[in-house]
Amino acid sequence: MRILGIDPGLSTAGLGLIETGRDKEPRALEWLTITTEKTLPLTVRLGELGADLRAFLVEAKPDLAVVERLFFATNRRTAMDTAQARGALLLVLQECGIEVREVTPLQLKIAITGDGSADKRQMQEMVKRILKLKEIPKPADAADALALALFGAYNAGVS
Amino acid sequence: MRILGIDPGLSTAGLGLIETGRDKEPRALEWLTITTEKTLPLTVRLGELGADLRAFLVEAKPDLAVVERLFFATNRRTAMDTAQARGALLLVLQECGIEVREVTPLQLKIAITGDGSADKRQMQEMVKRILKLKEIPKPADAADALALALFGAYNAGVS
Repeated sequence: MRILGIDPGLSTAGLGLIETGRDKEPRALEWLTITTEKTLPLTVRLGELGADLRAFLVEAKPDLAVVERLFFATNRRTAMDTAQARGALLLVLQECGIEVREVTPLQLKIAITGDGSADKRQMQEMVKRILKLKEIPKPADAADALALALFGAYNAGVS
Repeated sequence: MRILGIDPGLSTAGLGLIETGRDKEPRALEWLTITTEKTLPLTVRLGELGADLRAFLVEAKPDLAVVERLFFATNRRTAMDTAQARGALLLVLQECGIEVREVTPLQLKIAITGDGSADKRQMQEMVKRILKLKEIPKPADAADALALALFGAYNAGVS
């Protein structure tokens, strides 16, 4: 089973793809970010995110996508941008017929580290350890995306 | 020239289509809302909005779309839902190659009524008058969408 984690964002969205199965350790297949230029109009940026995700899905063929829920301590403008990007990315997943699971940051922290107050670094360390990677995956948004994919693996009960 | 106004929303999005030209009075062609069930998962709802808008665009063939910018006095949850719906709708417009203009509620009020503090009712009255309709167009979200389309007509300098 292939699980895609998505950390949504307008400037940068993280994608992390893992493979997992009943008697298999979860394995990281790919992690990357898709980005858009701040100087472009919003609609064009959403179009680029959509096209990039669509192209990725054709190759990656995930069975499930896990997308982080929105939760904002940051400024309103960023929140709105991220929400619009998230809507566009979810639409593409739906159009490609991929099952989507939504996860809150708190659920994610608890699932990965067992600690709801874990910080970013602890999360990334656990992702590295669980996936037996030599280094913490970079960029940070891609590491977050791998954590989301791992959540999907635990949640689907196949890892 | 055909101009489509869109009042974005997840439960209800308003669409208003007008026709206008250099020596023509703007004319309302169609106004309606597309809606989604609150009980469905977000991703499914975004998929429905996307599919409905796509189907509408095939028939309506607008040259320009005018989409209201987000501005929220309401609660955070609704704001996030609307923003995600807006992102999905903008993605569809971009994928269909339709030029998009974004308008703030204030710009819209000033353009339609000349008064930045106009209320909803005053806006709807002006839309009715400008488009020579017998009644205020309903539902309200569709009337708002016609106002957005009129903004596009003024702004494009062809009405």
